[in-house]
Amino acid sequence: MTNFSDWALGIQQRMEGVLSRCLQAPSQDLAGLYEAMRYAVLDGGKRIRSLLVFAAGESVGASIDHLEIIAAAVEMIHAYSLVHDDMPEMDNDVLRRGKPACHVQFGQAMALLAGDALQTRAFELLVNHLATLGSERITLLLRTLTHAVGPDGMVGGQAIDFEHIGQSLNHDQIERMHQLKTGSLIHAAVMLGGLAGHWDHEQELMLDIFGKQVGLLFQVVDDVLDATASTQMLGKTAGKDAYHHKPTYATILTLDAARRLAMDLHLSAIGSVSPFGQKGRYLAALADFILQRQF
Amino acid sequence: MTNFSDWALGIQQRMEGVLSRCLQAPSQDLAGLYEAMRYAVLDGGKRIRSLLVFAAGESVGASIDHLEIIAAAVEMIHAYSLVHDDMPEMDNDVLRRGKPACHVQFGQAMALLAGDALQTRAFELLVNHLATLGSERITLLLRTLTHAVGPDGMVGGQAIDFEHIGQSLNHDQIERMHQLKTGSLIHAAVMLGGLAGHWDHEQELMLDIFGKQVGLLFQVVDDVLDATASTQMLGKTAGKDAYHHKPTYATILTLDAARRLAMDLHLSAIGSVSPFGQKGRYLAALADFILQRQF
Repeated sequence: MTNFSDWALGIQQRMEGVLSRCLQAPSQDLAGLYEAMRYAVLDGGKRIRSLLVFAAGESVGASIDHLEIIAAAVEMIHAYSLVHDDMPEMDNDVLRRGKPACHVQFGQAMALLAGDALQTRAFELLVNHLATLGSERITLLLRTLTHAVGPDGMVGGQAIDFEHIGQSLNHDQIERMHQLKTGSLIHAAVMLGGLAGHWDHEQELMLDIFGKQVGLLFQVVDDVLDATASTQMLGKTAGKDAYHHKPTYATILTLDAARRLAMDLHLSAIGSVSPFGQKGRYLAALADFILQRQF
Repeated sequence: MTNFSDWALGIQQRMEGVLSRCLQAPSQDLAGLYEAMRYAVLDGGKRIRSLLVFAAGESVGASIDHLEIIAAAVEMIHAYSLVHDDMPEMDNDVLRRGKPACHVQFGQAMALLAGDALQTRAFELLVNHLATLGSERITLLLRTLTHAVGPDGMVGGQAIDFEHIGQSLNHDQIERMHQLKTGSLIHAAVMLGGLAGHWDHEQELMLDIFGKQVGLLFQVVDDVLDATASTQMLGKTAGKDAYHHKPTYATILTLDAARRLAMDLHLSAIGSVSPFGQKGRYLAALADFILQRQF
C-alpha cells in the first residue's frame, strides 16, 4: 500500500502532465493566450483539489483515467479564480505560488482572457474526454461543477467577500461566505471524484459531509495562516486579509479559538469517512494534511 | 404565417422574460451580483443570436421550450464577453447598448465577477433545463458551445485582436480573427438551434455553411458601421476601431469593397439555406436583417 506522501507526489506529477497536455495551443496565433493559461495552471502548488478528486474517486472505485480529467477541470477552475482574484480591481495581489501573478507577468488584458478561457476549457474537458463514463454521468458532473462555481457558489462568495470589505460579519455570515467562496469548489472536488465511481446512497452522503467539513477546515486554516505565516512560507502575500480589512475567522475569533474550530472540523471530517475503512485512508490523510498546513 | 418583424418581436419579448427568470438571486446576500448580471443581459439589443437559435431550430422542428433555454445560454455568453471586453484593461469603453457599461455602473470588480458568473450560468442552464432533450444531446450542445467560446474560439479571437492592436494584418488573418472572435458564437447559435431539432446530415451541412457566412457577414457590417455610423445610432462608442488602431475590414479594404464583400456573403448565406424552402424563411430574413444594419 502506497503511503500518503508517495501517493500524493504521484498524483501531483501526473497532473502536471495532464494539465500540460490539455493546454496545447492548436495554432501559432493562439500561443500568447495559451502561454498565459499555462502559466496560471502549471507548476501549481500542492494540488489539494486534485488530491481530493482522486481520494474520493478511489474510495468508490473510479478509474484513474476519468479522475485525471476531472481533477484537471477542477484545477483549471481554481486557477481561473486565482487569476481574476489577483487582478488590481479585486485583491490587487502581485504574488501567487511564489511567482509574479498572471496579470503582472502578462498584463491585465491577457490575464482577464486567460481566466475566462480556463473556465471554458474546464467544462470543455468534461464534455470531451469522459465519453466512456456516459452522457448521463457527464451531465451530472457538469451540474455539480457549474452549481459549485457559478453565482450561487464560488463567484457568489467572491462577490459577498468584495462587498463586505471593511464591514463586520457575524459567525454565520463568515461561514456562509467561505462555504461559497472556497468551500463549494473543495466540496465539488470530493463529489466529482465520487460521481466518477460507483457509490451507494450512504457513501454519497458520507462524501457530501466530508466535502463540507474539509471545505470549511481549509478556509479556517487559510485565515489563520494569512494572519500568522510569512509571505515566503505562503508563496502569496501574507496578511492581506487584515490589509484589506476583510472579516475572517481570525478576526471574529481569537487565533486560539480558530485553531480549536479547525481541530473540531478535522475530527468531524475524519469521522464522516471512517465507515470507508481502508478505502477512505487517503481522504482521512488529506484532512490531516489540510489541518497540518498550520499546526 | 407570421411575418419576420412580428416573429422577431415575439422572440425578443419572450427572451426578456426567460433571461429574467434565469437570473433570480436565490438569497439577499447575492442580490448585488445578480443585479450586475441582470444589468448586463436584460434590455439588450436586437437579440440577433437568439433569433438565429430560433430560426435554425424552427427549420428542423425543434421545440420552443428547448430553444428558449439555448438562446438564453447564448445571450449570457455574449453578455459576459461584452462586459469583459468593455473593461478598462481591454477596450475601455463606457457605453454599451445605450447605457453606461457594466463596469461604469457597478465598478470593475463587480463587472469582472458578473461576467465570470454569466459564463458559468450559461453552461448551468444547458445541463439543468433541457432534461427532455436527453443527456446525449445535452453533451453535444455543450461540446459545440464550449468549443465555440473558449480559447480556440471567441476568447482566442479576443486575444489575437488584443495582441495586434497597432499592427497590420492581411485579409486571411483578419478573417481568422473575426471568425474566432465574433463568428464562432454566431455559428454556434445556428448549430445549437439545429441540434435541438431533428436534422439529417445534409441539413446539418447547410446550417453549418449558413452559420459561417452570417458570422462573417455580421463582422464585416460591424466594421463598416464602426467606421461610418454615429455613437447614438450604434448605442456604443463609434469609431473605436480606428481610435484603438485596430485592423478591420474597413481598414484593409475600401468601404466600397467591404460593402461588396458583405453583399457577396449575404447572397451565399441565402443560397445555402434555400433548400429548406419555407422552413428556412426566417434564416434568410435574418441574413437580410444583418446586412441591412448598414445598407
